[in-house]
Amino acid sequence: MTAPGSDLPPEEFRRLAHEVSDWIADYLRDVADLPVYPSVEPGALRRSLPAAPPDAGESLDDALSDFRDLVVPGLTHWNHPAFFGYFAITGSAPGILGEMLSAGLNVNAMVWRSSPAATELEEVVTDWLRQLLGLPAPFDGVINDTASSSSLYALAAAREVAYPDAHRAGLFGQRQGRVYLSEQAHSSIEKAVVTLGLGSAGCRRIATDAAFVMRPDALDEAVASDVERGVRPVAVVATLGTTSTASMDPVREIADVARAHGLWLHVDAAYGGPAAIVPELRPLLEGWEAADSIVVNPHKWLFTPVDCSVLYCRRSEDLVRAFSVVPEYLSSTETGEVRDLMNYGVPLGRRFRALKLWFVLRFFGRRGIVERLRAHVAWARELAGWVEEAPGWQLAAPASLSTIAFRCLPSASWAPDSEADARRQDELNLSVMRRVNASGRAFLTHTVLRERVALRLSVGNLRTTRDHVRDTWALLREAADAERAR
Amino acid sequence: MTAPGSDLPPEEFRRLAHEVSDWIADYLRDVADLPVYPSVEPGALRRSLPAAPPDAGESLDDALSDFRDLVVPGLTHWNHPAFFGYFAITGSAPGILGEMLSAGLNVNAMVWRSSPAATELEEVVTDWLRQLLGLPAPFDGVINDTASSSSLYALAAAREVAYPDAHRAGLFGQRQGRVYLSEQAHSSIEKAVVTLGLGSAGCRRIATDAAFVMRPDALDEAVASDVERGVRPVAVVATLGTTSTASMDPVREIADVARAHGLWLHVDAAYGGPAAIVPELRPLLEGWEAADSIVVNPHKWLFTPVDCSVLYCRRSEDLVRAFSVVPEYLSSTETGEVRDLMNYGVPLGRRFRALKLWFVLRFFGRRGIVERLRAHVAWARELAGWVEEAPGWQLAAPASLSTIAFRCLPSASWAPDSEADARRQDELNLSVMRRVNASGRAFLTHTVLRERVALRLSVGNLRTTRDHVRDTWALLREAADAERAR
Repeated sequence: MTAPGSDLPPEEFRRLAHEVSDWIADYLRDVADLPVYPSVEPGALRRSLPAAPPDAGESLDDALSDFRDLVVPGLTHWNHPAFFGYFAITGSAPGILGEMLSAGLNVNAMVWRSSPAATELEEVVTDWLRQLLGLPAPFDGVINDTASSSSLYALAAAREVAYPDAHRAGLFGQRQGRVYLSEQAHSSIEKAVVTLGLGSAGCRRIATDAAFVMRPDALDEAVASDVERGVRPVAVVATLGTTSTASMDPVREIADVARAHGLWLHVDAAYGGPAAIVPELRPLLEGWEAADSIVVNPHKWLFTPVDCSVLYCRRSEDLVRAFSVVPEYLSSTETGEVRDLMNYGVPLGRRFRALKLWFVLRFFGRRGIVERLRAHVAWARELAGWVEEAPGWQLAAPASLSTIAFRCLPSASWAPDSEADARRQDELNLSVMRRVNASGRAFLTHTVLRERVALRLSVGNLRTTRDHVRDTWALLREAADAERAR
Repeated sequence: MTAPGSDLPPEEFRRLAHEVSDWIADYLRDVADLPVYPSVEPGALRRSLPAAPPDAGESLDDALSDFRDLVVPGLTHWNHPAFFGYFAITGSAPGILGEMLSAGLNVNAMVWRSSPAATELEEVVTDWLRQLLGLPAPFDGVINDTASSSSLYALAAAREVAYPDAHRAGLFGQRQGRVYLSEQAHSSIEKAVVTLGLGSAGCRRIATDAAFVMRPDALDEAVASDVERGVRPVAVVATLGTTSTASMDPVREIADVARAHGLWLHVDAAYGGPAAIVPELRPLLEGWEAADSIVVNPHKWLFTPVDCSVLYCRRSEDLVRAFSVVPEYLSSTETGEVRDLMNYGVPLGRRFRALKLWFVLRFFGRRGIVERLRAHVAWARELAGWVEEAPGWQLAAPASLSTIAFRCLPSASWAPDSEADARRQDELNLSVMRRVNASGRAFLTHTVLRERVALRLSVGNLRTTRDHVRDTWALLREAADAERAR
């Protein structure tokens, strides 16, 4: 028995780490047999655990047993091959191995000397990814937890440029500022703008066209009218791969408008960015190299376990100016080519996230990534074709990348002519989604487009095959038939 | 050979996960034999790796081999028992096992339904920790990456209360706001205030007494004078365990001032918070239960791998009001007792961090934590005693918790009477630190107190014994003798 307050002896750790490794290997092999979405009531896990922490230490064998028996049945399995919700993702084997090592090392890459190799590996892998994406050399990458944070930091740099005295004096007494984003932009952009003190009124939503992409002419008009009213344009956010429909904003035209008005251009390519690695998809991102900042999330469509979001800045000194607050206890005593990555964002503490991304890029290589992303897009487009051809179904947006938005209709000849009809259609779609999710055989999420519910199916998991997409399409049709018959 | 773009087959993953488990077990067993701080030149790792990513996928055996041969020698080993820099930490065995499982699962606790058990386990473990800390029930916890983020979110809630229209309209046209913090408060507070749009001028540093604790009378005066000038008081940040000296601000008196002026009280107990678990240390935190928000980092002095920072709010609805932006694609379709934790901070994506903290609290139990923290404090105080008694050495601040600040002097009878003397003393301390760190046998960092360099030694690692502290003290004396003789 270990003395209270001692860590597990190394040989006991070894035994349990092997047990955990086997559990993960079995899990990855068998996850398709689990219900992708759990049938649990809210509060179920909370009620099954002791209300108070243990006084004496417990055995980890018991903790692992509770993990298997109580926790796992209450999880939504993002690693399931028929997980098609949100943006489907995968924690690939190389990424998991990288996370295991990072956890074992527990180093902190806040400043260079707090772990030199962790800082330098982050420089190397973000530069490798930049090359894969075809972005020019001035773009300098840093790894954050999520796109929400990356966009917050990018917009903080934009604020710094628009209000050169903001770092010192704040926004008090300044002219109102505005960030432009399409009505399809992600909620994290509004959250960032609010966090930065510009308020939700600091967001101006730009209309999109029939394909849900931002209209550059509407952007230009909005900026011009703001300037006329004395509002200061701060930034425009273009999205490459919107959450609802994976639509791709026309970055080149948006960049022209941004340049004409002196706006910072931030590109939210958290999901869509990796498409640039695939030669025939790269044209969809044309013009993004003109951005001031770009966010791409390897933890989305690039097989890296959460969290791993890369923020690229064309002039990273703008980012550093926004965030550099260096007290003596963190000052560098080295000279030469060292970077202290704490100066590129809010968090001081920084996990060794570069390791997993390095393993992922080495294991798959450019070719592996291209082949898999290409397959995902092909299956999603094939599904879009099936939806288009099926009576009583329609695409809610043009197919783009690996995420499809669509609707089922109450009947094949459906022609809604009232709000009640429209509500009936919305309810049908939500019911179909709930029925599919309750089956445990696939998991989808929904959105709203032009005020009407649409279902989303996002392909992004390494274990997903064409059969999983085809089976889920069959499941959707069965669910729709059953719901229509109710 | 696996087809390009396929994940590693499960049995290959199993083999490598076992290999990685053995490597971690060996590492944890032998880390004391590694140099705690690497003797590497800036750029060494960067230059040893290919400048471009691989085109074809590579074997993970090669990647693991490069990890061992190229990366590990360039790391600063936070798990080394003589790592005494910054705040010393440990990635304990239960924490590492928890991280391994979280990486394998790759679930995302952004909303309840995206992984119900991950959300509910976070509720359970943050409540367990609250009970261990002796905080009252209204405090509601959520796990963030770092204290920098937790304090940012707490101060965003404070801003929301001080400027009820800020979420909508931003800070434009508002009266200047101020956050009060001691001159010893962590740099992350200023960074948060700047991020929130209040500017560095939105921070007012309050004088500390001889023990480096905030003077409540000076706080009261500062707030009153600001109010008189039309500046709006937003929040005061009290620190329990400052970075330079581990000083503990008098929270009870600060709470009285905060209440009198209607200020939000945020307590930065990122490092010092766990001391509340130890009965005889809890009085040092007296009054913190009057706070509006408190941050405690289990990844600091509570044996949890980075990152894991818990933010407690007395009224978490203030936090939610600051951060809630809910688009349709993230709207909940459940009813009842579900919480969507994305609404408690900036990041939408949220790793399953609760698992490692659950394992840590179960494995150590209250008693294990108490015994170990008690020992850390005892050794630090013993070191403080040695420093006080040694000729040519002095404490730079009273001993508190497990982190000690001290100085060596150029001679036993040192009486500096010029700026040149003071600079000579500073240089000596930095040279002693560099010499100790270059030995690879211990790692310390420095700070500046009253404009003079001081060395810091922070005890916080599970593998540290009294012998490591004693040996490092011997190393320091040897280094000082050698530097004095130069």
